[in-house]
Order: sequence, then C-alpha cells, then structure tokens
Amino acid sequence: MPNLAVLGAGRIGQVHADAIARVPGASLVAVADAFEDAANAVAAKHGCAVRSIDEIADSADVDAVLICTPTDTHADLIERFCKLGKAVFCEKPIDLNLDRVRGCLKVVEQSGGQLMVGFNRRFDPDFAALKAAVDAGHVGQVEMVTITSRDPSAPPVSYIEKSGGIFRDMTIHDFDIARWMLGEEVETIFANASNLVDPAIGAADDYDSLNVTMMTASGKHCTITNSRRAAYGYDQRIEVFGEKGAATAHNHHESTVEVASSAGYTKPPLQNFFMDRYMDAYVIEISEFILALQNGTQMPTSGHDGMMALAMADAAVLSVREGRKVRLDEV
Amino acid sequence: MPNLAVLGAGRIGQVHADAIARVPGASLVAVADAFEDAANAVAAKHGCAVRSIDEIADSADVDAVLICTPTDTHADLIERFCKLGKAVFCEKPIDLNLDRVRGCLKVVEQSGGQLMVGFNRRFDPDFAALKAAVDAGHVGQVEMVTITSRDPSAPPVSYIEKSGGIFRDMTIHDFDIARWMLGEEVETIFANASNLVDPAIGAADDYDSLNVTMMTASGKHCTITNSRRAAYGYDQRIEVFGEKGAATAHNHHESTVEVASSAGYTKPPLQNFFMDRYMDAYVIEISEFILALQNGTQMPTSGHDGMMALAMADAAVLSVREGRKVRLDEV
Amino acid sequence: MPNLAVLGAGRIGQVHADAIARVPGASLVAVADAFEDAANAVAAKHGCAVRSIDEIADSADVDAVLICTPTDTHADLIERFCKLGKAVFCEKPIDLNLDRVRGCLKVVEQSGGQLMVGFNRRFDPDFAALKAAVDAGHVGQVEMVTITSRDPSAPPVSYIEKSGGIFRDMTIHDFDIARWMLGEEVETIFANASNLVDPAIGAADDYDSLNVTMMTASGKHCTITNSRRAAYGYDQRIEVFGEKGAATAHNHHESTVEVASSAGYTKPPLQNFFMDRYMDAYVIEISEFILALQNGTQMPTSGHDGMMALAMADAAVLSVREGRKVRLDEV
Amino acid sequence: MPNLAVLGAGRIGQVHADAIARVPGASLVAVADAFEDAANAVAAKHGCAVRSIDEIADSADVDAVLICTPTDTHADLIERFCKLGKAVFCEKPIDLNLDRVRGCLKVVEQSGGQLMVGFNRRFDPDFAALKAAVDAGHVGQVEMVTITSRDPSAPPVSYIEKSGGIFRDMTIHDFDIARWMLGEEVETIFANASNLVDPAIGAADDYDSLNVTMMTASGKHCTITNSRRAAYGYDQRIEVFGEKGAATAHNHHESTVEVASSAGYTKPPLQNFFMDRYMDAYVIEISEFILALQNGTQMPTSGHDGMMALAMADAAVLSVREGRKVRLDEV
Repeated sequence: MPNLAVLGAGRIGQVHADAIARVPGASLVAVADAFEDAANAVAAKHGCAVRSIDEIADSADVDAVLICTPTDTHADLIERFCKLGKAVFCEKPIDLNLDRVRGCLKVVEQSGGQLMVGFNRRFDPDFAALKAAVDAGHVGQVEMVTITSRDPSAPPVSYIEKSGGIFRDMTIHDFDIARWMLGEEVETIFANASNLVDPAIGAADDYDSLNVTMMTASGKHCTITNSRRAAYGYDQRIEVFGEKGAATAHNHHESTVEVASSAGYTKPPLQNFFMDRYMDAYVIEISEFILALQNGTQMPTSGHDGMMALAMADAAVLSVREGRKVRLDEV
Repeated sequence: MPNLAVLGAGRIGQVHADAIARVPGASLVAVADAFEDAANAVAAKHGCAVRSIDEIADSADVDAVLICTPTDTHADLIERFCKLGKAVFCEKPIDLNLDRVRGCLKVVEQSGGQLMVGFNRRFDPDFAALKAAVDAGHVGQVEMVTITSRDPSAPPVSYIEKSGGIFRDMTIHDFDIARWMLGEEVETIFANASNLVDPAIGAADDYDSLNVTMMTASGKHCTITNSRRAAYGYDQRIEVFGEKGAATAHNHHESTVEVASSAGYTKPPLQNFFMDRYMDAYVIEISEFILALQNGTQMPTSGHDGMMALAMADAAVLSVREGRKVRLDEV
Repeated sequence: MPNLAVLGAGRIGQVHADAIARVPGASLVAVADAFEDAANAVAAKHGCAVRSIDEIADSADVDAVLICTPTDTHADLIERFCKLGKAVFCEKPIDLNLDRVRGCLKVVEQSGGQLMVGFNRRFDPDFAALKAAVDAGHVGQVEMVTITSRDPSAPPVSYIEKSGGIFRDMTIHDFDIARWMLGEEVETIFANASNLVDPAIGAADDYDSLNVTMMTASGKHCTITNSRRAAYGYDQRIEVFGEKGAATAHNHHESTVEVASSAGYTKPPLQNFFMDRYMDAYVIEISEFILALQNGTQMPTSGHDGMMALAMADAAVLSVREGRKVRLDEV
Repeated sequence: MPNLAVLGAGRIGQVHADAIARVPGASLVAVADAFEDAANAVAAKHGCAVRSIDEIADSADVDAVLICTPTDTHADLIERFCKLGKAVFCEKPIDLNLDRVRGCLKVVEQSGGQLMVGFNRRFDPDFAALKAAVDAGHVGQVEMVTITSRDPSAPPVSYIEKSGGIFRDMTIHDFDIARWMLGEEVETIFANASNLVDPAIGAADDYDSLNVTMMTASGKHCTITNSRRAAYGYDQRIEVFGEKGAATAHNHHESTVEVASSAGYTKPPLQNFFMDRYMDAYVIEISEFILALQNGTQMPTSGHDGMMALAMADAAVLSVREGRKVRLDEV
C-alpha cells in the first residue's frame, strides 16, 4: 500500500497522477511543482496535498516519488531520494550526459535504492504481446528487428534546443525497444541523419529524419527509422524477424471504420500522438512500479536500461558526426 | 452537478458506478442491492452510502437513478422514480412484455420524466464513427445494413430461461442498431432461427442461431445474423451500404500483433466479450446521460427506442413461430 | 487430347477460346457465330476453322462443344450435341424455364451424354481455397453461409429485359455457391427485393437490390445480398461460419498499394468486374472440363447443379411476389 | 512485328518464351541452348526453330535476342549482337565485374545498339502502381524508401558460389528499386551483413542476412533488408515515405481466404517465390521490350541502370569488408 508523491505537475506528471488513482491500494499523498496553479490542479483533482520538494523529502508518509520535473534536475533528485530510502520512478532520460548518468547510478547502487526509468513503450499492451510472442519462440531465434517510429509533427524549436537532440530525445525510446527485442546488446551502431522536415531544426543543429543500423556480436541486425513528421499520424511499428517467421505490432488507427467508395477503401489516420497511443501504457507502467514496490521485486525497467539507451544515442550521434560505424564500447 | 444512485450492484451496476467516477462533476451518492455484500463493495470502492431503494426514493440528495436490477423490476422502478421527479437511466429492456412497456412509457410521459434506455452499442466509438460517416453522406443514400453479432459462447440455460428468448435478449441490440443506421423504421420482418449450438437451449424452447431480414417502406434492406457461439471471440460488425459506397465498422482483436510463419499470418482472436469490447461504450453512455441531465437536453436513447426494439423482437418471434413475413404494425 | 469447337464468338466465347489455347493437349478446331466477323476474329487469333453450327454437328474431328450462344438456344443445342455423342460445356443457365431444363436433362441422361454447366465461380482459386478449408474441417460443422455479391454497375435495360430477372441472371451464381458451401440442399427460401439503383430496372419489372435468407432441413442458414451497383467495384465475398470458427474469402483490390496521408489509409477500389475478377476461374473451368473429358471422370459442375440453382431462383421470385417463405419443393 | 530469338532455354528462358507467345504481333523464331533437350522442348511448345547462337547471329529473320544464358556470357553476347544491329534484352547482371560492364556499355553505345536489362520488379503491377502513386505526388517529396526483400529459402551453395555474392545476386534488385523510387542517385552506402541462415553460406564466404542504409546528396534515406530465408514465403515489400504521407506495396498471399478460430485469424503464407510473385512482371517486361522495339522508343530499363545497381552492390561489399561508410563514387 505505497504512498506516492509526484514531483512536477506538468503533462506527464498529471498522467501519472491519474494512473495512481486507478491502481488499487496506491495513494497519491502529495504533489510538488514550481508553478503553484499546476500543483493545485492536481491536488484538487486527486485530493492530495501540495508540498515543496523539500517537504516531500521530509515526509515520513511518502514511500516513493515520481520524478516528472525537467531533465536537468533528474539525476540530483534521484540521488537525493534514493539516499533518503524512498523508491524512485524517473522519467527518461536520467541525464543527457552519460558520465553524469553513470555517477548517478553509482549513488543509487551505494544507497541500495530502488530506481525505475520510464520507458513507457515496454508497457504498451501490443508491444508487450509482441515481446511475449518472441519469448514464446514464435519467430525462433531473433535475427532482425525493424523499428519504425515517426511523430505526427515536429515540436517547436524551443523544445528541440533543450532536448539533447533527436537521438537522445526521440530515438532513445527505440534504442530501448531494440535492446528489449534483440535480447542481446548491440555491438556497433551506424546512423544517417538529415534535415528534411523543418529547416529551423537544422538551424538548431539537430536532425529530423534518420536511420540507424546496428549489429550484435552474434550477427543480429536492428534498424530504426525516425521522422519528426508523419502526415498520417503517430507511426509506431515493430517487426521482429527470425528463423521461424516474423512477428509485427501494427499501428493504431483512430477507429476501425473503413469507407469504400469509387476512390477506394479508406481507414482513418493513426491515433494522433503518444497521449492517445500510449495512455494505457502509462497506466500499466505506474501499476508495475507500484507492484514491484509492494512485492519487493525487481523494477521492470532499471537505471541500467536508462544508461544503455543513452549510450546508444551517444554512439549514434558520434556516428553521424564522424560518418562512420561506432562501437558501443567507444562511448 | 448531478448526484446519482445505482440500483442493483451486480456486474453492470458496478460498471456504471465506475463510469460515474470518471465523469467530472458527477457524484455517486448511494447504491442499493438486495445482497448487502454487493452494495457494500461498491460503497467501499466509491465512498458512497448504502441505502435501500425506498431510502433512495426518499433521498433529496439524489437527482437521478441508474436501474441495474433484474428485468422484471424495471418498469415499476421507472414509473416510481419518474413520478418522484428523478431522472432515470434504465438497462434494456424496459420489460419483456410490449404492452407493459407501452403502459410504462405513458406514465413517464405523464410525469414529465426523463428516461434513457441503455443501448450501450450506440456509444461505442467505432459504431459512433460509423454513424457519423453515414450521416456525413460518405455512402450516400443508405440501401442495405448488414449486422453480424455473435457471442463468444452461450450463456447457461438458467440465464436463457429468464432472458425472454434470444430475440428479446440478444437481437434486441441489433434491432436498435438497425433503426439507428437505416434512419427509417422497418416495415416488415422475416426471421429464420434454429438450434445448432447447444441442445439445452432448444430444450428450453429457445434458439441460438438466427438470421433476420427486414425491409423499410422505401425498400431499404437490413439483415441481422446472430449466433450464441463464435469460436474466435465476440464478433460485432456493421456494414452500411449505399449508393456511393459502403462503410464498415470492423472487429476488435486482442492485440495488433500478427505472427507470420510457415503456417501463415495469424492475428489474435477477437476481444472476448462485451465487458472488453464495450467498456468504453459504457463509460461514454453514462457520460452522455449525465451531460443530458446537466444541459437539460434530450436523452440520446429514449424509452421509445426501447419500445421499438422490443416490438421488432416480438415481430421476429412471431415470424419464426408462424414461418411468415410479419409487418411491424401487427405487434 | 480433345478437339473442341466454340459455339458463339461473343465475349464469353472469346474468353473460352483463349482458355483452350492455354490448356496443354487441347485444340480449338472450329468456331461458329451468326456474325461472321466475330467468328473470323476468333479463328484468326487461334488458327481454327470457321464453321456453322450444322457443320460442327457433322464434324468428326470435334469431340466437344462449348455453348456460348444466347440463352434461349442452350437447351436445344445441349440436346442436339449430346445425342451426337459430343461432350457439352454450356454457359449457365440451361434455360430460363425450369420445366424446359428438366426436359433437357432427361434427354442428356437418356443419351448418356456428358454435360458441364458453367458456374465459373466454383473455379475461382480463392473460392476453391475456401471450399477446401471448409472441407478440411477448419470451421467444423457448417452453420451459416453469408454471400455478398454486388456488381459494379447495372447493365442496360435491354439486357435486363432478356435476362430472366435478377434472381435467374445474377443471384443464380450465389444460389450455386450456397449449395456448394452448405453441403446440404436448402429447404426454404425467403427473399426481399426492391428497386433502389435505377428506376428503369423497376420499370422493366425487375429488382436491383435484394436479400435472400434460406434454411436447410438441419437448420443451417444462408443469406445472400445482391446489388446491381457498388461504387467501390465488384464485391464478391463469401463467409462460412461453423462450430469451430469462420472462413472468409475476401475481395480483390486493383493493387496492393496503400497510401497513407492526413486523409487516412487508402487502398484502391476492387477489380472492376467479372472479366478481371474471374479470368483465372474461366481458364481453370475450361481446364477442368477438358481434364474430365480426358480422364472420363465426372463433370465438376453438372446439369443437375444448373437445374437446382434455377429452381432456387424460381422459389425466390415466388417468395418476393407472394411476400412469403417458399419451400424449394413447391417449384 | 519483331521476330525474336531466345538464347538459353533454362527456367527464365522458358518464361520469356511463354511471354513472347502472349504478346500480339511478336514471334519467337528461334531458341538456342547448349542442352539440346531444353531447346527442343521450347521449340516444340512454341513452334519455333532450334538454332545455335552462331546461327542466330547469322539469322536475317531475327530482330532481337533475349539473353538468358549464364552470367559470364552476358557481356560478350550483348556486344556481339549489338554490333550485329540486333536489339538485346539481357537478364541481369550484365557482368559481375564493374569494369567489364563499363566496357560493354561503351561497345553498346558505339554500335548504336538497343539494350534492355531485365529488372523484372519494375514491371510488377503493384510496384508500378506504387511508383505511379509516388510520381502522382501522393506522398509529396520522397524522404525515405524502405525495401524488405526476403527469399523463402536459401539456394544451394553451388549456386551461391557462382552468384557473385548476395549483394550482386539478390540485393542488386533492391538497389535498382531504390534508385527508381528515390528519384535521385545515392551518394553513400553503409551495409551490415552476417551469416545466420546457413553456415554453408558463410563457409562459401558469403552472407545471408543484411541491412543496407544509404543517403542521397539531398539527404533522402533508403534502407534495404535482405534475408535468404523467410519461413512465411517470399517477402517483397516497398514503403515510400514523404512529406505528405507514405505509400506501401504490400505482399501477395497464396489466397484471400482467412480462417478465424479459437487460435486467431489466419491468412495463408505468401506466394512461394519469384516465379509466382513476378510471373505477371515477366510477361509485362517482355511486352515492354517488344513495344519499345516496335515504337523505336527508349528501353524502360537501360544498360546504365544495370551498371548503377552493380556499382551499388560493389560499394556495399566494400562497406562490409572495411566496416565503413562508402561513397558510391569510390567504386
């Protein structure tokens, strides 16, 4: 019966607060946010207290915190709350700097703390069903993983500038999925990236269109395709190919209605973005965090997972910069 | 800001109680059930009072009731609460006897009461999208409506015996969809029915497999196909065909994962039954009821809708009994 | 190594002549047509002789004839060539009059002749695969057959007037499929028909939109839906439902290309009409005829099949006229 | 009205001979093959002469030749027949050595000869429809092309050893498609390849599983995925993504029949291999060759196309060998 506090009452903090309300046995006792109105809104909706982060650190009635604050505060907060013996769920990434992440994880380890990093896609019911099919041996030995991930439209440049770049902000999710589906760490990474969608993104020294191809020591392949814009909605597909066949998680359309006319057969576009596509995943993710707390079992996505995905992103950035294949152990 | 009470804390009563909790501005203040444990469970979950139906009738803090009690109590409860000036949401059917329904609706009318009958499928997002596509003219003038509705497995005979028969229990939903999609009342009904699934159903003087074909005065067609058992899950499809094309609401599979192997390409079976398939519909249905209360607008599904669907069921029963086409105005 | 002659060099005669050319071991030796140009065109294309029907009757080098002449000549030609000991393939229907068909089949029987009636759809690879799946027990005991058959656009009234009406001209194909898939004769037929597509068809005392529902003695159901116009192309689907599941033969689109845009996901319309959809079926049909000739085996579709489908059409016409369920043994 | 000769009466030579027979106005006058039986079989089937290659070179009645002989004879035969003023259709590749190809194309150019290289996939109706959709602007500016191409099963090592390696034998088709769909030459190529399917392929110094990622000067991306084995059949898909959406050519299943059961919804595997999947393409390819001859228009796939695809294969081989990104102008 854990009592939880949410740090940061922005969009994702609100999503997690709603998720907590749907988990039997869990209580949201406090919310913190630099903007009083945001914290008050969550508090009013869920009947919890508004407290500062310092107050939450001192709160004996708080067992665990969900860190939904800006990225540059994540590592410090993780360290602080782990040292206090409170379990921590943290939105990805832990930090944009790989060395800082490594340092943070050492502190977590030394403190014996519990840390879960929010890779929401692993909790998507379809991706989980895909993983289950792969684990059940339906495709046999995995040989190739193909991940297609395209956002419906590009974020504003103000977001891009603080994002750490497309590889650390967007592809990082796909890197995590790649590791999860391959069942083996990648050894080498090669990436091509270009600026096709919005010149402002290029002006901000970032890319909006990319392909990554990776290989493991045993010769398994993985490719990732990203674009910051897809006219037909939020494109999220995974194919896992192996000796016995292939398993694919298909996209989600806005509805199942198909209209046939002289112009052809038309299904609606895809669900618009992650708040539609992954809403179930967010709820399940928080349930799994709470369940692990209750049962004292291992966190389903660890700090190590967070570090590995960031390392892959760094390797991809290096690959694009230097135009060459990069070994993951270089970063 | 309506305050509501749920009469009957069985499965569907629980679903509606959960739905109320998700509608901003609505409060569940009381729940009643002959079985104390059932009422207590709902009360504990939602923090509302346990009251008897009589107490709820006397409760000044209850604006509206949701009738989820056994069918043979519906008409009496509707009359009672309408006379008390409380708005009523009632699960279908109002009654299994068409004359009793007519009498009840007269009382509702005389009391100036508000009554919504629970045809949940109209609130299914896909069927609503289908209706919107039809209303937007995407198929032009409607000519043929084809409804396929098959349950995953037959209910126990104890249920069948109290159900009023498959036409009044199961097909009644499809009759309502038929009226909704045709946009015109049917004039004639012909039905074939047989007992293919479970001999016990035949022994209980009911059918488990049927086809209905209907025609409107202007020559529009509608066919309904029902079975009490579909090995592949809960089969719920509607096709609306017209001069400019056809619009179809397709089924819901358990996931989007497709596995390709030497045996072919396999998608998972359909969602198992109405609690999976129509959970969103139940939530939206209650939201719409509360919205109509708040805005003083017309109920989206009326007592008249409930009566018409039952009349069609009666006509179908007569058609099977006498082996002939029946005019709807015969019943 | 049969030598064949084609009687009638219209569209379907040309299709069959082309088909013969693709069957190893078969030779087209002669073609007849009242219009010399039509016969000459076929003769030039396939290097065969132009002969009159009388000459073909006298031709010792002709083993079998394909009757592709107007419907009202079919029965006479069947009788004539059967008596001459030549095998006969005849386009459906044998005749529009059921008694004439019965008389003709008696002559065929007495002469010991071989007669195949051209129900091309049984030779469609997809429908044949569907039948094979049903025969292999994939759906278990068959319970319901649902046939959707819509033409892309209505024929001219001049065609309608000589067609024998939609049931004998168009639905007759679906009646044959119904018998084939049900694996049991239907006992009763009920039909609704209306005139929604083209008022000129109604003025010609025919229908363009209809539904048929049928039942067998054991309680199996079959429904047929027909329209003379489908904006999205030639709609040809069959679903066979049974205790273990359902098997469906889906439609053929113009291509596999799907375009995703902000307007949704669009596949092309269906193949336009029977010459596209059933071209493979025509070739296979003629191959099977020739194969049965070569091997002395039973014709895959018999005169009896032709008679039964016509009887069902007659029963459906009677059902619409009298507004009642008709027993097949009434006609 | 061209007269044609087929050089090489193996499988693909037979396919082309059959294709010629279906093109109105074209005549197959001769066939050559080192194996007399093979040549005789084609001659018997199509009523043409058996001649040696030397005799065909001297044949005044031969306007064009189709070179279907082993790869190492292609370049010499192309040069010989072009110098003789006969049009040439040659199976890919022109040669496995890029310099030899360049030399051959110079001879073709100097002789003013007509040369078409057999990239059959461009003539597949679905891929042609995809290209038409792209050219019609349905996806806007092309940004990413994704090609999935997997054979049903690996060829024998004896074939592998003479094939020139997977990039020059199998991927070469995808390289051609890439150029065609991108509408711009690629600038850089990176490839990963491994041996996962059959150790004997690795022992023969070849790969069976690979990914290629390429970029054009303007920043367009293309990825190719190949495997020598797909349990579910011949996997041939192309996705073209651009600013306005994406267009995809989907796979071909063995039939349209889908079986729904408690195990899920199952469609049949894909068509087995290229003789099924691309049979229409082969016929259209030869028709287009003959049409270009008749009309004196440009060949739809040129020697230059053949050279470019081979250059891309060479670059990919270099990329794998040296583990780096390769510029196409390096080879």
